[in-house]
Amino acid sequence: MAVPAFDALLEQPVFRTYFFYVGLLSLKLLGMSLLTGAKRFITKAYVNPEDAAGFKVKVKTHEDVERVRRAHLNDLENIPVFFAVCFAYLTTNPSVFLASTLIRVFTLCRFIHTIVYAVVVIPQPARGLSWGIAFFITVYMGISTILHYL
Amino acid sequence: MAVPAFDALLEQPVFRTYFFYVGLLSLKLLGMSLLTGAKRFITKAYVNPEDAAGFKVKVKTHEDVERVRRAHLNDLENIPVFFAVCFAYLTTNPSVFLASTLIRVFTLCRFIHTIVYAVVVIPQPARGLSWGIAFFITVYMGISTILHYL
Amino acid sequence: MAVPAFDALLEQPVFRTYFFYVGLLSLKLLGMSLLTGAKRFITKAYVNPEDAAGFKVKVKTHEDVERVRRAHLNDLENIPVFFAVCFAYLTTNPSVFLASTLIRVFTLCRFIHTIVYAVVVIPQPARGLSWGIAFFITVYMGISTILHYL
Repeated sequence: MAVPAFDALLEQPVFRTYFFYVGLLSLKLLGMSLLTGAKRFITKAYVNPEDAAGFKVKVKTHEDVERVRRAHLNDLENIPVFFAVCFAYLTTNPSVFLASTLIRVFTLCRFIHTIVYAVVVIPQPARGLSWGIAFFITVYMGISTILHYL
Repeated sequence: MAVPAFDALLEQPVFRTYFFYVGLLSLKLLGMSLLTGAKRFITKAYVNPEDAAGFKVKVKTHEDVERVRRAHLNDLENIPVFFAVCFAYLTTNPSVFLASTLIRVFTLCRFIHTIVYAVVVIPQPARGLSWGIAFFITVYMGISTILHYL
Repeated sequence: MAVPAFDALLEQPVFRTYFFYVGLLSLKLLGMSLLTGAKRFITKAYVNPEDAAGFKVKVKTHEDVERVRRAHLNDLENIPVFFAVCFAYLTTNPSVFLASTLIRVFTLCRFIHTIVYAVVVIPQPARGLSWGIAFFITVYMGISTILHYL
């Protein structure tokens, strides 16, 4: 059996929402590279000898840089997989309201996660909650997709 | 020249298989975060001061946690690129039997890879073989796609 | 409102270009694993006890390996997000000439980045420029997509 009504699905407004948030989340993920660069510049913590030499400093690490890199890695663990599984989920003909809401909440949580992890560090459970809600949205999309195409 | 018969391709059953395994592999990849969390809890090895403070321990690393993180990173190196290149490959109108088999073997190998790397550590070549078979499936898809669209 | 003329967009030749370069960039990204493996073999720097034992050496790290791994991580930070945001960007009906050129320049820059970072290390700004041009192409695609679907 073919993917049911694939052409019709692609014409649904929810794909506009999806592409919009792919753009926004991509910019957010790419922004982590700029944040890392800024923190390296502030702390003069360069890991490549040729970079450190340019600032006449020794190769070193700095906790502020490492914290941003952990937030970046957490994005890499969660955002590309969301792009893929959300696309698969949208082909299962979900409720437009539910799908749009899940995409928006996921995006909001990922922004909050980075802010409380690497910009203004605040105590748990802010980071755990923002990570967890986004995480379980992705899990829900994965389970929905599997059950649909089983 | 346009992508040949793109609409017809998207209606092929192999896209059902693709979306199903995107869902399954996404859950597998996301599961690595839970496994890391479990190992951190068991070994009390936290890398963020605010997390370690919650358990009244010092920041430290533990080999059991690092092993799971290496398996997770290996997933990040292989699974998102598979999602993209497999989709591209499916637009080249491959044999449905071959494509479905490659997707299933890739998935099986990635599950085995994690188990022998981070759950029940067994000697090589189990890890190398499971990694390598999945790796060369992705390489095959990449080469097929390039040759088709050259 | 639906995605405008989605079927017609998918029939545009620019998707052939996109899929070709998804194949090529996937092979490039996967090649980093082989390069890491080669460097580990040359320097005998293995991080898993079971791998080191196979060569009768101790677990250690080596700067040549770490350099390739940093280049690999940089690919993971930039290439999967490019796959997603470029696909979203192509649905916004961009100029075929512009889109094709951006895809080609992005790919060229990512190849140059790896060569000057991890194969033949040359002084800055070669690495910074190749990274930066590819980075801002992705940012441009993200902003274009957001503005289109706003």
